[in-house]
Amino acid sequence: LANKKTNGKKAEDAPPVNIGWDSHKPVDKAPDSLVRPGDGPDGNYPMRARFEQMIREAQISITDAIEKIDGKAKFQEDSWIRANGGGGMSRVLKDGAVFEKAGVNLSVVYGSMPQEALQAATERGVDRAKGMAPGERVPFFACGLSCVMHPRNPHCPTMHFNYRYFETDGGVWWFGGGTDITPAYLNEDDMRHFHGTYKEVCDRHDPEFYPKFKAWADKYFVISHRNETRGLGGIFFDDLNDREPEKLFEFAKDAVNSVVPAYGPIIEAHKDDPFTEQQKQWQLMRRGRYVEFNLVYDRGTVFGLKTGGRIESILMSLPETARWEYDHHPEPGSPEADIMDAFKHAREWV
Amino acid sequence: LANKKTNGKKAEDAPPVNIGWDSHKPVDKAPDSLVRPGDGPDGNYPMRARFEQMIREAQISITDAIEKIDGKAKFQEDSWIRANGGGGMSRVLKDGAVFEKAGVNLSVVYGSMPQEALQAATERGVDRAKGMAPGERVPFFACGLSCVMHPRNPHCPTMHFNYRYFETDGGVWWFGGGTDITPAYLNEDDMRHFHGTYKEVCDRHDPEFYPKFKAWADKYFVISHRNETRGLGGIFFDDLNDREPEKLFEFAKDAVNSVVPAYGPIIEAHKDDPFTEQQKQWQLMRRGRYVEFNLVYDRGTVFGLKTGGRIESILMSLPETARWEYDHHPEPGSPEADIMDAFKHAREWV
Repeated sequence: LANKKTNGKKAEDAPPVNIGWDSHKPVDKAPDSLVRPGDGPDGNYPMRARFEQMIREAQISITDAIEKIDGKAKFQEDSWIRANGGGGMSRVLKDGAVFEKAGVNLSVVYGSMPQEALQAATERGVDRAKGMAPGERVPFFACGLSCVMHPRNPHCPTMHFNYRYFETDGGVWWFGGGTDITPAYLNEDDMRHFHGTYKEVCDRHDPEFYPKFKAWADKYFVISHRNETRGLGGIFFDDLNDREPEKLFEFAKDAVNSVVPAYGPIIEAHKDDPFTEQQKQWQLMRRGRYVEFNLVYDRGTVFGLKTGGRIESILMSLPETARWEYDHHPEPGSPEADIMDAFKHAREWV
Repeated sequence: LANKKTNGKKAEDAPPVNIGWDSHKPVDKAPDSLVRPGDGPDGNYPMRARFEQMIREAQISITDAIEKIDGKAKFQEDSWIRANGGGGMSRVLKDGAVFEKAGVNLSVVYGSMPQEALQAATERGVDRAKGMAPGERVPFFACGLSCVMHPRNPHCPTMHFNYRYFETDGGVWWFGGGTDITPAYLNEDDMRHFHGTYKEVCDRHDPEFYPKFKAWADKYFVISHRNETRGLGGIFFDDLNDREPEKLFEFAKDAVNSVVPAYGPIIEAHKDDPFTEQQKQWQLMRRGRYVEFNLVYDRGTVFGLKTGGRIESILMSLPETARWEYDHHPEPGSPEADIMDAFKHAREWV
C-alpha cells in the first residue's frame, strides 16, 4: 500500500479505453455493484466495493433531504454502464421551488488516461509522470460522488462537494474530496455554521485536518485570472494516503454524511428571504464566475472532459443561468463589495 | 523573413514581463501609436505600425456601423497602456436595442510568454518549442483586433472576428485571424450571404484561400467534448507566412473591412423578427455552448488568460446571459434539431 511509482507500462499494454461520447449506455437500473473484481488495474477490490456502497447510500440520503427542503421538484435518475466496466447514476433536480438546479452524480470509471489527465486528476501527477514514456497511458480506477446545488434565492449559497477514491496501476491509491460553499452575499453566522460543522468532522479524525484542508480549499478554489476565489471555501484534500485506507474511508464517509447538516439549515433559513432584481443579477454574475472556475480550473471537470466522461453529468455543475457584465465593479461599501473583499482575502470563520 | 527557428534564449535574457492584473494602466486617450520602435524583439517595425493603424481604422468604422444598426446604445471606450510598452482600446456596447453586448477590442502586446502560451498562440507552437530549454520564455510582439457581437433576437446570429499580427524573436512572424458566425436558428440564405462574402474576399487574394480557411474554421470551432461546432463557421487561418508580408497584410485588411458587409445585412433583416420565449431559451442554451468553447478551447482566450491579459477585454466575448439545461435534446424535426445537424456535420454554403 506504499506510494509506489507506476511501472513503465506501454500504451499498448493498457486495458482498452472505450471512452467516448457514445460509450455510455443508458440502463433502466444500475446493477447492485458497478465495481467488479478483475476489472481495471490490480488493487484493493474490497475498498473499491465498500466505497461505492458508501456513496450510493449517501446519494440517496442527500437527495431525499434536498427533495424535502425543496418541497416541489423530484430528482430524476439516469443510470448508465460503460463498455469496459463501471458506470454511474446521475440524479438531477430542476425547476424546483427552492433549487434552480441540483445534481448528485455517482460514477465508477475504469480506463487508461493520458498523462495530461493524470495531471488534472492529482497534484502529484506531474511527478508521477516523470518515469513514463511519451504517449504512455495510465490504467486507473476511480469512484466518486459529486454534487452541485444552485438555489434560486440570492441569499441561499451554492454548495458543491466531491468525494472520490482513486487507484492507478502499481498499487498506487488515494482519497480526495471536499465540500465548499459559494454565497453571493456574506452572512457570517452561516459561514460559522458551515465551516464549524466541517471543523467538527475533521477534528473527529485528526486535529490537523481542518486547518490543512481549509487552507487547501482557499488555495484550490481560486479563479487565477481574476485573483479571487469562487466562493468562501470549506475543506479540500487530494492524494490522501498517509495512513491506513480504512481510516481515510471513515473520514470520507463522515464528511459526505455531514453535507446535509452543514448546508441544509442555511437553505431553510434563507429560502424565503426577500430579494431585489439587482440582487438576483449579482447572483447571476457570481454564477458566471462559477462557470469560469469550473471550465478553466476545476480538476474534476478538466479530468472528465479529457477522459471522455459523460458530458451531461460532468457539466451538471454549471448553473441554469449565468451572467457576464463588462467591467462590473460593486459600489464601495455595498454588500457586494463586502463579499468581494472576502473573495480577495481568505478569512477564518471558526 | 524565412520561418527561422527562435534562438535558444534563456528566460533571464527575455524582456521583463510586467503583465498582471494590475499592469494595465487606464488612460484617457491611447497614444497615436502603441507600437514603438525598439520595444520587443527585433523585427519588422514598419509592419507592426502599419498593422496597428489598419486595425485602429477598422475598429472605428466597424463600431460606427454597429451603432447605426443598433440605433440606441453607444460604444464605451476604455484605453490602457502597459508598463513595458503596448496597450489597447476596448470598445464595448451594452443594453442596446439590437445588441445585448458587442465588443471590439484592440491590443498591442510586448512580452515574453511561457511555452504553454506559445502552444495556445500558434499551431506550430509544439514544434517550435522543441529546441527550447525547460522554463525558457519566448519574447513576442502581438497586435490584434478582436470582436464578438451578441444580438438580442434569437434569429440574429452572433458574430466573431479576430485579425492579428505576431512576431517572436529570431525573425519569426505570422498573420492569423478569421470571421465566423454563430446562429441559433438556421437560415440558409443568410449563410450563403455570409460565406459568399468571405469567399469573394478570399478569391481576390488566392483562390485556394476560401476552401482552405473555411475547412480550417470548421475544424477549429469544434466543442470537442460535445462533438459539435460552436456555430456555422466562416474562415480561420493561423501561422500564415508563406508569401511576402505585404500580400498577407492586404488580405487581412480586406477581410477585416468585410465584416460589416458580411454581417450587417443579416442583422438588419432579422432584428425585428418575432420570436417566442422558447426560442429565446434555445438561444441562451447555444450561448452556454459559446461559453464552453471560449473558456475551454479558444486560442485567443487561453493565450490571454495565460499571459495575464486584461481580463475584462478577453472575456468581453462572453454573452450577457447563458443557460445550461441538463440533458436537453431538441424535438426531432424541429428547427432546433435542424441546426444541431449542421453543428454535427459541417456543410458547404457556397
